[in-house]
Amino acid sequence: MDTLSILFSDEMKTVEALLSKNISSGIALIPDLSHYLLDAGGKRIRPLLTLACAGLMGYEGELHYPLAAAVECIHTATLLHDDVVDQAEERRGKASARLVWGNSANVLVGDFLFSRAFQLMVETKTLKVLEILARASSRIAEGEVLQLLSLKNLTMTEEHYFNIIERKTAELFAAACEVTGYLAQKPQDTCDHLRRLGLHLGLAFQLQDDLLDYTAAGGSLGKTIGKDFLEGKVTWPWLTLYQRVSPSEKTWMQGLMDNEDQRPSALPQMIQLMHSHTVVSDMESLVIHHTQRAEEALHALAGPKAIHDAFGDILQSLAHRQH
Amino acid sequence: MDTLSILFSDEMKTVEALLSKNISSGIALIPDLSHYLLDAGGKRIRPLLTLACAGLMGYEGELHYPLAAAVECIHTATLLHDDVVDQAEERRGKASARLVWGNSANVLVGDFLFSRAFQLMVETKTLKVLEILARASSRIAEGEVLQLLSLKNLTMTEEHYFNIIERKTAELFAAACEVTGYLAQKPQDTCDHLRRLGLHLGLAFQLQDDLLDYTAAGGSLGKTIGKDFLEGKVTWPWLTLYQRVSPSEKTWMQGLMDNEDQRPSALPQMIQLMHSHTVVSDMESLVIHHTQRAEEALHALAGPKAIHDAFGDILQSLAHRQH
Repeated sequence: MDTLSILFSDEMKTVEALLSKNISSGIALIPDLSHYLLDAGGKRIRPLLTLACAGLMGYEGELHYPLAAAVECIHTATLLHDDVVDQAEERRGKASARLVWGNSANVLVGDFLFSRAFQLMVETKTLKVLEILARASSRIAEGEVLQLLSLKNLTMTEEHYFNIIERKTAELFAAACEVTGYLAQKPQDTCDHLRRLGLHLGLAFQLQDDLLDYTAAGGSLGKTIGKDFLEGKVTWPWLTLYQRVSPSEKTWMQGLMDNEDQRPSALPQMIQLMHSHTVVSDMESLVIHHTQRAEEALHALAGPKAIHDAFGDILQSLAHRQH
Repeated sequence: MDTLSILFSDEMKTVEALLSKNISSGIALIPDLSHYLLDAGGKRIRPLLTLACAGLMGYEGELHYPLAAAVECIHTATLLHDDVVDQAEERRGKASARLVWGNSANVLVGDFLFSRAFQLMVETKTLKVLEILARASSRIAEGEVLQLLSLKNLTMTEEHYFNIIERKTAELFAAACEVTGYLAQKPQDTCDHLRRLGLHLGLAFQLQDDLLDYTAAGGSLGKTIGKDFLEGKVTWPWLTLYQRVSPSEKTWMQGLMDNEDQRPSALPQMIQLMHSHTVVSDMESLVIHHTQRAEEALHALAGPKAIHDAFGDILQSLAHRQH
């Protein structure tokens, strides 16, 4: 995201100020907990997409700022609720907010941020924007429920897995891009291209994230190798490997799902199997497939060359991300 | 609510159908859990207020239906999250949804319902309505956080207590009424009267509810006597009594806050003290004060006599509610 971040660093400051303003409350716990998470070095990918797409659209108003802030508020709210669901102990390299303030505070402050997101959206006074983001929120919640129901489901189909990640991750990426088309009053096909850009970027991002859980080179960005695996979370690498291994290895993998304690020592062998069964290389191809589809959508859009190039950089680095 | 319920029973069927339609999802857990709570005999007070106020306004469109459904969705979402926060074991006279499906499902389905509420609101295409309900949602979340922070706070001021109940309960009553004024494009003062009607009705309702926790005649409507008390929840009766008792009784009350086990046997004495220190009669006066202020707001509004009379019945029965 580097080139794009630099290109929009001034605009992002406006978004950060709006975020700070909107998480303020007479009840200190609310900004305290929100800032704890927001200031922990999140990459602000989603609001950055909103700013960048507004730039592509040549949008000259001010309403993309509350929109970008709303998108980050929705994302932050889902992180807070996710951490309760996952009983997460760590987030962005430090103790999760729920460990500091408790699960109840996480749930309620998440609700507050979610409401604030809607207040920010309403500021755009653009019904189509509200419609898209309200729908996106429903789909995100469905994705989270689906993920909850799919824990330890080793026979999950690839389609089912994509249904989860499209909703829980790619949907907000897609909406963050799409809404700028309506804000700038562009024709339907432009809005559709924006949506596709965000959707495939989001899918590539999530697939890469799931793969890096097994292959990340280091602990940068708070990403710990094997985190999903150690929590027994079934992602594409796991379910694809499971389909490809021998019956006795299947039994071994099932055993790992049932016995948390055995997972740490099994991680190296899991990674080795993923390489030997070409799970890693197949997944890299899948990431590249989605970055290419995002690229196609990008090419169908007009806009300043500098922003196009910066998007191109993101897609390139996503396809070759090592951490 | 009886007269009003009968008056709007046909319209309420439309709202129920909309609710059912909007909690549907390809993921069965979502409608299952939602219906479990929605079908457990909730009184639908909030959507009824929306229908009744739309009636008072002489509104002839169809948009009060999605609005009423949205209001009930917000309410249901907050109940689901409340139950996680309170670790509630019972709701509406049966096992709480979180006991059946777990805390995680409660959190995520709550998020889904909350998102659906926003989708329903967007259908009204009325920005002022969206603004009011988004703001109400933020204030409800603030009220919940404030309540969480005030658990076991025996030195809470009356002002602080009102700040909590105004946000967590009265705000949604107020918004449920107020929005119909904007929907029917009425002047500002009419909208303000509607808001006051809902606000004071909500305050009276919550105060009565808090009082009935100590004085309810029976277990009707799923209300168990002493529930707040046994959970160590500080409400008006408790904090007012605390201010009025002797130092040694204060120490006794503090002890009850610290020792859950001692509360059941202490309940009769608590109730007796509340009578002898005129806490019960003072609180009854407070309920009547708010029903009167709601009545004043009602009188300032035009509208069919049948609806006025039905509202009058509610306010009367609220002032003398025994269960």
